[in-house]
Amino acid sequence: MRLIKKLEAMTMAIVVVTLCITTAIASPPKYVFFFLGDGMSNTQIQATEAYLATKNAVDNGLEIGPNPGELNADYLLNPDNRLKMTQMPVAGMQTTFDAFALMTDSASSATAFASGIKTRSGVIGMDNTKTTGYKSVAELARELGKKVGIISSVPLNHATPAAYYASVSSRNYYNNIAAQLTQTGYEFFGGGGLISPEGPARDGDTSHNIWNMLNDAGYTVLNDRTSILELKTTPKDKVVCINPWLQDGDAMPYAIDRPETNLSLAEMTDVAINVLQGNTGASDNGFFLMVEGGKIDWACHANDAMAVIGDMIDFDNAVGMALEFYKSHPDDTLIVVTGDHETGGMTIGHATTGYKSYYEKLFGQKNSFVYFNENQWTQYKEQYSQAVCENNNTLNAAHSIITLLQNDFGLNWEELSTYQQERMAWAWQCSLCGYDKSDSQNSHLYGSYEPITVTITHVLNEQASIGWTSYSHTGVPVPLFAQGSDAAIFSGFYDNTDIAKKIASIMGITAELPVVK
Amino acid sequence: MRLIKKLEAMTMAIVVVTLCITTAIASPPKYVFFFLGDGMSNTQIQATEAYLATKNAVDNGLEIGPNPGELNADYLLNPDNRLKMTQMPVAGMQTTFDAFALMTDSASSATAFASGIKTRSGVIGMDNTKTTGYKSVAELARELGKKVGIISSVPLNHATPAAYYASVSSRNYYNNIAAQLTQTGYEFFGGGGLISPEGPARDGDTSHNIWNMLNDAGYTVLNDRTSILELKTTPKDKVVCINPWLQDGDAMPYAIDRPETNLSLAEMTDVAINVLQGNTGASDNGFFLMVEGGKIDWACHANDAMAVIGDMIDFDNAVGMALEFYKSHPDDTLIVVTGDHETGGMTIGHATTGYKSYYEKLFGQKNSFVYFNENQWTQYKEQYSQAVCENNNTLNAAHSIITLLQNDFGLNWEELSTYQQERMAWAWQCSLCGYDKSDSQNSHLYGSYEPITVTITHVLNEQASIGWTSYSHTGVPVPLFAQGSDAAIFSGFYDNTDIAKKIASIMGITAELPVVK
Repeated sequence: MRLIKKLEAMTMAIVVVTLCITTAIASPPKYVFFFLGDGMSNTQIQATEAYLATKNAVDNGLEIGPNPGELNADYLLNPDNRLKMTQMPVAGMQTTFDAFALMTDSASSATAFASGIKTRSGVIGMDNTKTTGYKSVAELARELGKKVGIISSVPLNHATPAAYYASVSSRNYYNNIAAQLTQTGYEFFGGGGLISPEGPARDGDTSHNIWNMLNDAGYTVLNDRTSILELKTTPKDKVVCINPWLQDGDAMPYAIDRPETNLSLAEMTDVAINVLQGNTGASDNGFFLMVEGGKIDWACHANDAMAVIGDMIDFDNAVGMALEFYKSHPDDTLIVVTGDHETGGMTIGHATTGYKSYYEKLFGQKNSFVYFNENQWTQYKEQYSQAVCENNNTLNAAHSIITLLQNDFGLNWEELSTYQQERMAWAWQCSLCGYDKSDSQNSHLYGSYEPITVTITHVLNEQASIGWTSYSHTGVPVPLFAQGSDAAIFSGFYDNTDIAKKIASIMGITAELPVVK
Repeated sequence: MRLIKKLEAMTMAIVVVTLCITTAIASPPKYVFFFLGDGMSNTQIQATEAYLATKNAVDNGLEIGPNPGELNADYLLNPDNRLKMTQMPVAGMQTTFDAFALMTDSASSATAFASGIKTRSGVIGMDNTKTTGYKSVAELARELGKKVGIISSVPLNHATPAAYYASVSSRNYYNNIAAQLTQTGYEFFGGGGLISPEGPARDGDTSHNIWNMLNDAGYTVLNDRTSILELKTTPKDKVVCINPWLQDGDAMPYAIDRPETNLSLAEMTDVAINVLQGNTGASDNGFFLMVEGGKIDWACHANDAMAVIGDMIDFDNAVGMALEFYKSHPDDTLIVVTGDHETGGMTIGHATTGYKSYYEKLFGQKNSFVYFNENQWTQYKEQYSQAVCENNNTLNAAHSIITLLQNDFGLNWEELSTYQQERMAWAWQCSLCGYDKSDSQNSHLYGSYEPITVTITHVLNEQASIGWTSYSHTGVPVPLFAQGSDAAIFSGFYDNTDIAKKIASIMGITAELPVVK
């Protein structure tokens, strides 16, 4: 018995040590997904879940709540109405300020979570003095032999995707950033287009022809739905997939505007997974895939909640693709989902609605603010601006805008408060006949947006019980969700620079971040 | 060797099993702290940390940032400028909606995290049909032999503290709630006073004289600083400690208004810990202590950021008392800190400031909105209302309000935008001469608050870069922080009802929540 006890004690010590070592050097996941909802915080998430709860109740013929303005908790708790990201097992929070700004921009925030260093707003992959370049976790993953994919619903050389492959002193040097893209060797780029593909260089650099450089580097550029989806069965080695229709600033269209000939972010993610798995074999080191839902942010800048919600659902469906992949590779996959900052000062409540919410009011909005501006409003303006501004035949113009409000946003003029009607009438006048953009009231009410359109979304959103306070980013900490290998280290409250460090450590990168290029 | 291997294998199995069992039946913590910041979400937290970073930089003669509107990240990352709660090791998030409202009230939210059940707004400790009463985790802790303490900066029979001892169909039945308080046997109550201590009953019940009932139940009621602090060295068995000065609605004053003769929430917490430990001995089963920072919410309702920040710091200092206690009892203590909902639609950014922040603007605010209303504004109104409303001698009145803005809020009239000056002038007129409260613009701009005062805090806060969208609660998920025994189960994204369930399970309560009374 004494021998056995001694052996037991010895073995126990061995087991304990073994367990500790196992924890410390757990096999790194082969497949790492990083999903970035640009402008996404808890408010964008809760607004989307409240919308889904309300929409699915109405679609199923259920009453939204026992009284007007109420919403049954059962719907909000129902997993079918929840975003996939909030059902992931691990949650954390991150502070988003950059080197000198409480409200970060997307260049400095992306540099933080891609390279693990705080920098100045506008700088990508460099320190705040703009002298030293740093490697991103995508570049470090590549050094480990992983394939790399970069997806964004905004242009592929926009700030967030750029931070995964470029180092540049200004996010506005698009031609230079795109030139760096062509030299990455990454297997997959997909989503929006490229800004300034033929120059200008803007930083003293000579202009590059990006299409030629992509060709020289062996990339295939595709921009039709069929060819892109064919990659799922016949993957290519190096490919750039651009959505057929680029709506505004070379970006994919808002999800609520998307025609069937286009691709969703989920479809683009599905294609990327297949491309990155294309030559899977014994020597496969897996992949790192970054997916950005970039137009959540753009819709927040414009204070258009319905466009936000559409792109939130689109983004979450892309997360769903990774969760599907996870089912087949549960021991080899890490999925991280977060935002880079909040945008718009969005809130889940408004002075006009108090403790009530009416998300069903949002159902009437047909398209995004951009689509409305470029179509219905442009036509309206052509037809009526002269008459209104010369105060001639205003009655027809007034009837027509009231009809537009009803048809395109579900807004009933008679149901608006006097204050809402007054704001709408003033914005209508401003949009038709021009206004002083330097006036402090106008810049407060409209930012740099079309007065009538931003007033419509303000009024519609406040009717639903959604508020906005800014046309810029805000500084609130944002949530992070994680699932898979070593995901538990993402629990807690930390800084955005820690995200890069955590991802690097899980991937088995031994160098301490930030790593100089 | 074969014998040894077999023994190793056997022993390993035993060890693994032992480890699992140890995890499952870990000894419950003797000491459980639950801190509730009413109205506290990530925005209230980040605003406070940005204020502290700015204030401590200025106090130490450092520049806030390299350029105006900038703020060095180093200050925000410095633990000395951080709240204690955000430095706790575990973080989670909780959804806050109640049975039928996306924007919960404090009665239903407190019922959720005290008893683990969703109910209707306004209901305390009962289901949404108001028929069945449920036990709180404080009552369940008492059944385990723990002592119980309840602290709130608002009245002791207000919604949040009430949910830990009362079951009542309406939070407004204050006399009935207070009567239930007297029957708890809880060792410690402290903070604000009691609403309706002598009635009316308001629910068909006969009115109770709460002071007599407290006396009959063996409670000592103290309301001076010296007597309360003496409890630290000479604890009593059952005590109700009421802050000497009750400012508004029987609540403790805002921290920024507090005279030295009053107690801070941290001092009240320190006293409670000593009272609850009073008879520590071999049979001691420890305690459950709930501490509410209730006026964070009240300041948010009024959209007064500086009052919010003062009470956030006061609340966090109370958390600090528990963290100090934890150092002496690291294996026996659980500390949980969270909010019940966000209030005010507070944001860390505003249309007028964009990507800049100027928290130093807040330094000029001397007192809370309540203090200003009851003192400086009351005097001003007495002196000038007749002149202004009869349009007589308006110049002196205008000079005088401009002086008030400068002296009491640090607002320089010349630095306000035209739009800010116009809003201020209109609110001044409304506050002095009356206005139509049913007008939609007025209710949007002022809620139910004094027009001039809420406009002053709106303008001051937007100058700092803080926005507000509501005078009510909002529906955004709020963070939770935890430290100590089994704190890891508070990681993740869950519902507010899960908090009661998690606390109960950690305390070793075997019944499944909610538990019928």
